[in-house]
Amino acid sequence: MTRISALDVIDVRFPTSLGLDGSDAMNPEPDYSAAYVVLTLDDSDIAGYSLLFTTGRGNDVACAAVRTLASYIVGRDVSQLLADIGAFARELTWDGQLRWLGPEKGVMHMAIGAVVNAVWDLRCRIEGVPLWRLLASLTPEEIVHQIDFTYIDDAVTPADALAILSEMQGGKPARIAALEADGLPAYTTSAGWLGYDDDKVARLVGQSVADGFTMLKLKVGADINSDVRRMKVARDAAGESARIAVDANQRWGVNGAIEWMAQLAPFAPYWIEEPTSPDDILGHATIRAAVRPTLIATGEHVQNRVIFKQMLQARAIDVLQIDACRVGGVNENLAILLLAAKFGIPVCPHAGGVGLCEMVQHLAMFDFVAITGTTNDRWIEYVDHLHEHFTDPVCVTGGRYRAPTGPGGGARMLDSSIAEFRYPDGPAWARPTTTQ
Amino acid sequence: MTRISALDVIDVRFPTSLGLDGSDAMNPEPDYSAAYVVLTLDDSDIAGYSLLFTTGRGNDVACAAVRTLASYIVGRDVSQLLADIGAFARELTWDGQLRWLGPEKGVMHMAIGAVVNAVWDLRCRIEGVPLWRLLASLTPEEIVHQIDFTYIDDAVTPADALAILSEMQGGKPARIAALEADGLPAYTTSAGWLGYDDDKVARLVGQSVADGFTMLKLKVGADINSDVRRMKVARDAAGESARIAVDANQRWGVNGAIEWMAQLAPFAPYWIEEPTSPDDILGHATIRAAVRPTLIATGEHVQNRVIFKQMLQARAIDVLQIDACRVGGVNENLAILLLAAKFGIPVCPHAGGVGLCEMVQHLAMFDFVAITGTTNDRWIEYVDHLHEHFTDPVCVTGGRYRAPTGPGGGARMLDSSIAEFRYPDGPAWARPTTTQ
Repeated sequence: MTRISALDVIDVRFPTSLGLDGSDAMNPEPDYSAAYVVLTLDDSDIAGYSLLFTTGRGNDVACAAVRTLASYIVGRDVSQLLADIGAFARELTWDGQLRWLGPEKGVMHMAIGAVVNAVWDLRCRIEGVPLWRLLASLTPEEIVHQIDFTYIDDAVTPADALAILSEMQGGKPARIAALEADGLPAYTTSAGWLGYDDDKVARLVGQSVADGFTMLKLKVGADINSDVRRMKVARDAAGESARIAVDANQRWGVNGAIEWMAQLAPFAPYWIEEPTSPDDILGHATIRAAVRPTLIATGEHVQNRVIFKQMLQARAIDVLQIDACRVGGVNENLAILLLAAKFGIPVCPHAGGVGLCEMVQHLAMFDFVAITGTTNDRWIEYVDHLHEHFTDPVCVTGGRYRAPTGPGGGARMLDSSIAEFRYPDGPAWARPTTTQ
Repeated sequence: MTRISALDVIDVRFPTSLGLDGSDAMNPEPDYSAAYVVLTLDDSDIAGYSLLFTTGRGNDVACAAVRTLASYIVGRDVSQLLADIGAFARELTWDGQLRWLGPEKGVMHMAIGAVVNAVWDLRCRIEGVPLWRLLASLTPEEIVHQIDFTYIDDAVTPADALAILSEMQGGKPARIAALEADGLPAYTTSAGWLGYDDDKVARLVGQSVADGFTMLKLKVGADINSDVRRMKVARDAAGESARIAVDANQRWGVNGAIEWMAQLAPFAPYWIEEPTSPDDILGHATIRAAVRPTLIATGEHVQNRVIFKQMLQARAIDVLQIDACRVGGVNENLAILLLAAKFGIPVCPHAGGVGLCEMVQHLAMFDFVAITGTTNDRWIEYVDHLHEHFTDPVCVTGGRYRAPTGPGGGARMLDSSIAEFRYPDGPAWARPTTTQ
């Protein structure tokens, strides 16, 4: 019998604030970081890898939250654990004492998600398959069993979910083949960080279009005159046919969002992302009604399936952006994908940061293969930073994510990168940085 | 010039699970705990005290979150800090890196609240006044300046808040006198924990009514037959005139709540508290429409002002339950009190746990003196546990909270209690316990 022998957590931080890559209206100088999780076995070199993404300070708190979960998993029989990951996820989420710290939100919930994701990664590595393919190999019943329907069964029931999955079951082999041949569409955020000057934006936008991207995103929200100018620069460089979305990173209140977007309307923004607090369901609905035809997108900070459910019930969003590290892991993201499908809203995953592209692509690919079967109005966010630190970096060519073939969920980092960027003792942090 | 010399955090836990005090449908065996916060000065013995309440496991994560805030406050000039606590609270809440861990929710937000509350406690001790009196002494303009209106100004503006406070300004001295003479009404939860048998419930309910309580609360949600039986026991013991509220601690989904409450309706529950997820604004609105005339109450797990705003906008609740330790401290609770006043919804604070009664009474007293001026339909929750560990334990007599007279915000614990219940090294934890 194989058991989990340890749950290790490493504080890894990249001094990205030095280059203003990743700068936006709310995160002027992020240091992309990870509470990096490793689940080890007592009789094998195979391990499970995961990470909880943060933007720097507080990464120690994320590590502490993961660490406190060790007693819930160390010593477990691995075959039992992997046979019912849904039960394990529910056990962590519904712990009568830990639950006070959320419930199902914030650092504790993200830590639970990271541990759940590490278990999925472990299962993938034992079976030798990428996560998207493992999920696609499960039956509709097995997928439904992974999901905690508590608090969402007034919007999507197990029977609803089963019906959605069952309808798509027959076409899975053909869609897997299509995915392997063509990948899935990406959009790029790399051209439009708030800290970049106009020339850099124009150059990067032009290059992105030349590289095959048909959709781009610009950060906005710090200064309206600058936003209007940059939006014109981007539109001129991208041409009329490219979609250009904008992202305010929660910078505005409800009325402020409506006023600001009125001034950007002449440049036909495709969507406005995070116009206000991710908690403000009714606010998003009000903004949505006011800024049409610009679409409303949010999700990278949406804490759990209950808020997503209401965003859908209230017709508050047009685009749902899952994040691999925000909610309670793969299991809760399956619930969210099925909620979106029930309401007919496209999922365009949030990515970037460190490792988020590598992780979330698997969920988007499962969504395509087993839930929606379409790429219409769907793109996975792409940011071209920090991929070199992963054993299986994303492959984005011609504006498309290519299906990963290696085993796992994407979060495994190179040992050399971990050693270099460990915080605070790695050599990278002995050099001058801006914010630590 | 006096400076903050240290922010210390102590993990204090009480093995309450041994007696099933505090047991409910979601917390079968809580160990009431606190991340206990002490702000010390470099040239004085005066300190600021606060705590972040948890129910046991994960209290270490809460401590880690508080600890990571030390660098934001240690070394500050105290007179500058105390002159604008609102600015300090905003600085923590809007930190571009920490914000990723919420934003404004979960452990990190509760930790920010604990530090902000410690600053208020420090100011009270320096001025030698209880918190309720300090707040009552501030002008309407000074109160409005404490509040971050971001994300709520579509529901309550600074001008709205100023108008509410200004209208009540003249009557403050008379209401302070009334408060000092009569206190504020309390209700008791001590009679109805889920782990208590019927005889104990009957005896405690009878005793509570004899002690002057006109309102009681029963925990429900684990078993419908047991709930019906216990509700009858309580109603028989309390008589027809007493209000009996019930509390499901988030046990149900939307449909489940409606079905369950239909069976309790014959016993005329005054309110149903936490019928479902605290995140489910639309769900509460649906339940409210279905269970009238039973009222809907929630708030102890409501993460911030943005969710409360929507609960009010959606007419989802009849009773708003603030908690001293859940949100971003005194400042965010001032915003929530003013939101409630704007919508005409009574605030009935959540208390219990450890220290929550001691802390939240100050906010209810300020609400009475400076915002609403009425005790109609308003009670502060009271639970008769663990008060002996505080330097200024609550005084509840004749079913009423008596106004505290000592300086501070209520959270200061006895050194002897801290020494005894430190986790894991205090003597109390060397004895057998159930859950650690």
